[in-house]
Amino acid sequence: MPAKDAIHDIVKAALIKDGWKITHDPYTIQYDNTRMYADLGAKKVIAAEKDKRKIVVEIKSFLGLSIMDDLENALGKFVLYRSILRVVEPERQVYLAVSDETFANVLGTTSGQVVMRDLALHVILVDVDKVEVTEWIEQSNTAK
Amino acid sequence: MPAKDAIHDIVKAALIKDGWKITHDPYTIQYDNTRMYADLGAKKVIAAEKDKRKIVVEIKSFLGLSIMDDLENALGKFVLYRSILRVVEPERQVYLAVSDETFANVLGTTSGQVVMRDLALHVILVDVDKVEVTEWIEQSNTAK
Repeated sequence: MPAKDAIHDIVKAALIKDGWKITHDPYTIQYDNTRMYADLGAKKVIAAEKDKRKIVVEIKSFLGLSIMDDLENALGKFVLYRSILRVVEPERQVYLAVSDETFANVLGTTSGQVVMRDLALHVILVDVDKVEVTEWIEQSNTAK
Repeated sequence: MPAKDAIHDIVKAALIKDGWKITHDPYTIQYDNTRMYADLGAKKVIAAEKDKRKIVVEIKSFLGLSIMDDLENALGKFVLYRSILRVVEPERQVYLAVSDETFANVLGTTSGQVVMRDLALHVILVDVDKVEVTEWIEQSNTAK
């Protein structure tokens, strides 16, 4: 079983400091075929609420051998959860939480920005030293 | 280094039988940051041409411990290649090639269909015993 992500507890603490209540850790989706969505990687996904907003947060460090593999894994989980949530709980938004440093090295690059726009990615940036949310980025995609 | 996918050579042979010329094996994208896109998983992606059509094909068996992990990996690579290709080579379409059996067990389920529609997934189905393409599926998504 894969462990929690390296910055799992930091992201949780940063969200709590930002006024969010963590409602599920891990968060798993049940739809159609339960077995299918009880995934091994679910430990990297939590749910939170603040006022009337509900979010699912995929927490992702980029510590693997390949940035590309890490990015594919992050995007795959993100789009899968988003696609299913649009049906089962459309009011709940999906975010990818990464460190400021990961953002600068991966999603903030020219190619990373292309991917973020095309996929309408929503990202939470976290300062892992200060344990604080530094930015919420909600891309809207230009065309499909 | 990860090896080629288990049905790699079968999918290639099926495409050739279908009149396609394999132009790249593996196919890698170079854009912005070369290092970023020289990924370890590129061996699972090929490119092909037929008449004036150009395609990139991600070949994917679902042989892992978790269908969900396999699906996330497949979707992540698919959307990443598609997002970048829309900028660098927009005429080249991206497809995910799976066996008929994988399709029935994963993408053909109710939840799989939700994901395919939402992501506008393009899929090539292959009969691995007959080494033949059985269907081309080109979903258009309903809303973004």
